[in-house]
Amino acid sequence: MSAVDREQRVLSIIETARAKRAKFRDERITMAHGAGGKATQGLIEGLLVPALDPEGTGLAALADAGAVPGGDLLLTTDAFVVKPLRFPGGSIGELAVNGTVNDLAVAGARPLALSLSLILEEGLGADVLRAEVEAIAAAALSAGVAVVTGDTKVVERGHADGMYVMTAGVGRRDPRARLAPDALKPGDRVLVSGPVGEHGTAIMLARGEFDLDADVASDTRSLWPAADALLDAVGSQLRCMRDATRGGVASVLNELARAARVGVTVREAAVRVRPVVAGAAEILGIDPLYVANEGVLVAIVAPEAADAALAALRTADGSAHAQAAEIGEVRAEPPGMVLVETAFGGRRVMDQLVGDPLPRIC
Amino acid sequence: MSAVDREQRVLSIIETARAKRAKFRDERITMAHGAGGKATQGLIEGLLVPALDPEGTGLAALADAGAVPGGDLLLTTDAFVVKPLRFPGGSIGELAVNGTVNDLAVAGARPLALSLSLILEEGLGADVLRAEVEAIAAAALSAGVAVVTGDTKVVERGHADGMYVMTAGVGRRDPRARLAPDALKPGDRVLVSGPVGEHGTAIMLARGEFDLDADVASDTRSLWPAADALLDAVGSQLRCMRDATRGGVASVLNELARAARVGVTVREAAVRVRPVVAGAAEILGIDPLYVANEGVLVAIVAPEAADAALAALRTADGSAHAQAAEIGEVRAEPPGMVLVETAFGGRRVMDQLVGDPLPRIC
Repeated sequence: MSAVDREQRVLSIIETARAKRAKFRDERITMAHGAGGKATQGLIEGLLVPALDPEGTGLAALADAGAVPGGDLLLTTDAFVVKPLRFPGGSIGELAVNGTVNDLAVAGARPLALSLSLILEEGLGADVLRAEVEAIAAAALSAGVAVVTGDTKVVERGHADGMYVMTAGVGRRDPRARLAPDALKPGDRVLVSGPVGEHGTAIMLARGEFDLDADVASDTRSLWPAADALLDAVGSQLRCMRDATRGGVASVLNELARAARVGVTVREAAVRVRPVVAGAAEILGIDPLYVANEGVLVAIVAPEAADAALAALRTADGSAHAQAAEIGEVRAEPPGMVLVETAFGGRRVMDQLVGDPLPRIC
Repeated sequence: MSAVDREQRVLSIIETARAKRAKFRDERITMAHGAGGKATQGLIEGLLVPALDPEGTGLAALADAGAVPGGDLLLTTDAFVVKPLRFPGGSIGELAVNGTVNDLAVAGARPLALSLSLILEEGLGADVLRAEVEAIAAAALSAGVAVVTGDTKVVERGHADGMYVMTAGVGRRDPRARLAPDALKPGDRVLVSGPVGEHGTAIMLARGEFDLDADVASDTRSLWPAADALLDAVGSQLRCMRDATRGGVASVLNELARAARVGVTVREAAVRVRPVVAGAAEILGIDPLYVANEGVLVAIVAPEAADAALAALRTADGSAHAQAAEIGEVRAEPPGMVLVETAFGGRRVMDQLVGDPLPRIC
């Protein structure tokens, strides 16, 4: 069998496996179920969606925001368990606001209101709590959204890590948006709004988990200005947006490829990665494309709109997305798969994330 | 000083203290901050509201649901950390749906959509998770509301108790509703939709914390049918509704008395308490009026509407609220206070809950 035939055969086997909906057969929950990769998808597709959406209406789209019946509003939610609570560039409170704002933004919905649930650990310093509540207030103000309701629970010492923060958000679907994960068409371009892997690397460095003295800050920010700019510039030629959090850009592209049953090709050389982030990822043995971001948007746009979209992104929100880049494109084949073209002319499969190399990252 | 003078003086001192907004001066979080009583109110009024709502618009009303700007929708949220996860009459999943549905219902909003956030502990049995997801699905179906979006995080073994469940809900304000916590007027009647203290007692019994072999089940249920019946029967004469969860009926009445700057008088003999619940409360040294409910609604209605409201409640949702009762009334004096008239003709202050006699109840 030639090398080309062998590759075709491997791809065909993988493709067959992918065509099936993920099953949930695990006996116990592992950290991997929270990592945003293959195990998370199994949990969602194999357990949560069949129970909560047996008729396959809302949740089954696997989007991060669901439609509120009877109107043009979307609802989304996120739980945050990041360790440590504060890190260069942000904190759990800021993350909790931006994370939920971003789920709405990439669904093409202007954020309107947030709810805030806190699970506090007995013994938590009031100053720590106050700092997070102030971070939440500042992030909400900056994102132009109000926290309108909340709830607080306390658990005994040792039953949480200081605090867990949950936000939910309501947004209004922007009339310019015609977004759907299965709208991807062969030829569409893949844009990424900035350098990848900053958030995950900042967290790992803040934990002191490797002996690396580097200046990396979380990229946590509201992505609504970027989403707004894209909707304005290319409107209906914008197929889909995602924020590349847990599991990074690689996981987002895998999800989209599966949802639309298309292939996605990524040109590795086009992906912006700061050298320090690349170095940290190498120590961890992980591709920076799998490392979490909290302020990076992936946009799939029609080929004729790619240049306008890129220009809009680069000038959105000051210079926040100045390094936005086109990193690849959508192909007809192989459906459900992401392939990377390496700088040396090679090609490899960029599969779903397995395991949890970066636990408690958000 | 006569006994009457002495009582007047005590009331006047308490009243002065109450006129001030609660402060948050604690150095650390204690279990009491999650108990729904005085410490919780201090945390909300002294820390959360000043930071998140400095101009006193939404949150400051201290209601359990907040308005989504630009429409007639309300948003609410709840975190659930109940121990054990399953108990007679319900489970954490069912509680999480009903709790959020009820926050909307008592705010006069028809529940439309829920979000679901899960924090799972590494090692949690898949069967335990599956049972809760199914309980969530069943409760949502029964309450006529869809779970449209979700998020799952996993924390390491020992960093949660199996699972914490967070829900947020969106509801549409019912046009029949003219509800506000400060709408209470002297002469208004206080209705309670059923016997009190069942949920809290069921949880304490399920934990085996006292040597009592009794058949008590949680009253967890959707309160929308009851709220709907009240809105239908007495509409604009309905001043305010609350679900009497953490801190029980006593805490709800204290909150309302403070918000409306009115007094509330409760006739102890009119309060329905099952003997087994009364017995458990006595062992705990707590008044059943402070014990949590998950399916009991407190309604304040204009005096002329009290009979119609009571009749509507008693026939709402099958026989769920057959034991609804009028238990007291609103008075001009003393503002901000709840007084109980005992069966023996005495009178005592029913103050805000202090400490956390029943931790992790919801």
